[in-house]
Amino acid sequence: MLLPVIYRSLEEDYWHLCEAVQVWDVSCQRQVEITGADSQKLVQLMTPRDLSKAQVGQCFYAPLCDESGGMINDPIIIKHSDEHWWLSIADSDVKLWAKGLATGFGLDAQVSEPDIWPLAVQGPKAEELISRVFGEEIRRIGFFRSRMLNYRGKKMLVARSGWSKQGGFEIYVNDMELGGQLWDELFAKGEDLNVGPGSPNLIERIESGLLSFGGDMGYDSTPFECGLEQYVNLDADIKSLSIDALRTRKSKTRLMGIVMDKQLKLKDFRLFSNGREIGVITSNTWSPKYHVHLAFAKCDINFIAEKQQLYVISTTGEVPARITDLPFNFENLGLKS
Amino acid sequence: MLLPVIYRSLEEDYWHLCEAVQVWDVSCQRQVEITGADSQKLVQLMTPRDLSKAQVGQCFYAPLCDESGGMINDPIIIKHSDEHWWLSIADSDVKLWAKGLATGFGLDAQVSEPDIWPLAVQGPKAEELISRVFGEEIRRIGFFRSRMLNYRGKKMLVARSGWSKQGGFEIYVNDMELGGQLWDELFAKGEDLNVGPGSPNLIERIESGLLSFGGDMGYDSTPFECGLEQYVNLDADIKSLSIDALRTRKSKTRLMGIVMDKQLKLKDFRLFSNGREIGVITSNTWSPKYHVHLAFAKCDINFIAEKQQLYVISTTGEVPARITDLPFNFENLGLKS
Repeated sequence: MLLPVIYRSLEEDYWHLCEAVQVWDVSCQRQVEITGADSQKLVQLMTPRDLSKAQVGQCFYAPLCDESGGMINDPIIIKHSDEHWWLSIADSDVKLWAKGLATGFGLDAQVSEPDIWPLAVQGPKAEELISRVFGEEIRRIGFFRSRMLNYRGKKMLVARSGWSKQGGFEIYVNDMELGGQLWDELFAKGEDLNVGPGSPNLIERIESGLLSFGGDMGYDSTPFECGLEQYVNLDADIKSLSIDALRTRKSKTRLMGIVMDKQLKLKDFRLFSNGREIGVITSNTWSPKYHVHLAFAKCDINFIAEKQQLYVISTTGEVPARITDLPFNFENLGLKS
Repeated sequence: MLLPVIYRSLEEDYWHLCEAVQVWDVSCQRQVEITGADSQKLVQLMTPRDLSKAQVGQCFYAPLCDESGGMINDPIIIKHSDEHWWLSIADSDVKLWAKGLATGFGLDAQVSEPDIWPLAVQGPKAEELISRVFGEEIRRIGFFRSRMLNYRGKKMLVARSGWSKQGGFEIYVNDMELGGQLWDELFAKGEDLNVGPGSPNLIERIESGLLSFGGDMGYDSTPFECGLEQYVNLDADIKSLSIDALRTRKSKTRLMGIVMDKQLKLKDFRLFSNGREIGVITSNTWSPKYHVHLAFAKCDINFIAEKQQLYVISTTGEVPARITDLPFNFENLGLKS
């Protein structure tokens, strides 16, 4: 599946996302649907995040991990009911993994990939726009909560979520024809809000510390190495494939934020400290808001102290770099927008 | 991953493949590697084809099926040893399925995707060309057999196989630099054989009855529905996930060959008999060799008798069509090249 990623320019799209409202066709964000008596059991096996208290309609950003603690994906897990779950996945595969586990463990859990085409509405004016289409009820949906709302006679899941930090909703469109009508209606009703098409934006997501599976993390990383510890419940009494491994496996790397004072084009994606390679840049961008170049880097766990003389190699030579925790704390870094 | 599919024109590439020799970069044909004490057990669980007598170096075209008998993929299974297997897969995913099963069944089997970039050398002059690079030994490799051969100091698997019926070999390149050198050497030593670049060719593979997973068959099809019964051993004493389902599940459809007497552009992919839809065309091409238009169609099992008045709808209207078993038997069809 293809995802259009730039409509005007990366930077124009960025400012528009931060200031107005965008409609994103993120149909490529596939749903892995799990149903059956053992579905909660299967979902819990797949993630080290405690789902035992999950409520209907609740959404969970969660790492999926294998039995060695390595990441498989980082979906939003959505609970429809005890026996009906969705994994709204990042761009790699989960269906066959879930199906293989269900078969192997002999679980009463059916795994499928229904035709659901998420439409994300993101930006500071998203709530206003969505309320004009779905009514005032949407204002009462909490963060990472969802409701089944009516759209032209059809119930669709609407969640307050999305892959930006500008606020907004994701509408899990389940009807091809209504999808087109909804798209048009959002544009018609959002004209005065300066609505426009958009997509996950590289600048915005790096500034916001949102990670991309397959780029910033992969099968060889644990959630700890990716800085996702808040989504791992090591002390919970849950049956999860990866819990034992995650309790004992030592982190070798850590995903860190890197800040450089000038805009640059990397010639080499390695990060150096005193001539020694200590990490590799996984994503980078110029930040037009903070006037620095930002990057994520997978760093050797022994070299993540902040007071080092670091540098990267750009097309114009060595460029000094600062290392910091993620997400970026721009105030602590002394950076103002 | 991308696969270049046309170098000159589809038809020029076709004739060249049938008459000379082509080198195909089919790196996209990924290897799922299974190792460990239970690896044969895991591979056998995945396929209803009996692998109990498999010999080292032997290659098996085999359907992979889930517990309902639905197809997961149709790889070439290669036995390196009892504890070391490759699934050389078609263009969908298998790794997570294999890994999920291994985890769920608690098998001692490690699943990985090593960097192997197959290079196929196909066409009537393939054997001559390969012998100039790998030596006369390759002439003694039987059909669907392989050997580990030396190339510039590195052992690579060379198998007599490939996704055409023009004869040839697949070289499982395991070294990026040597891959480039091998490519150049094949072109340098094949100049008098009219060697050229190529790829799996739509015309050739339809004429030859080679099916494409994801197009001609998918998760909803059984091997029987795809005409792959010769690769299913229902009577064998094997532990395979799908065996029970395949013994009892009734076929609803059957992949059939469709022949039309003139070149056409389909307007509609449905196949009709007396105004009733009886199937859907999954692949189609003009055959320059037999001067007919050929198609595969997934047909209702109740309407696959040969003596029907069938038609398809092309841009110029209804076109009569004949239905026949696959692979096409051109002699029986009264067609001459």
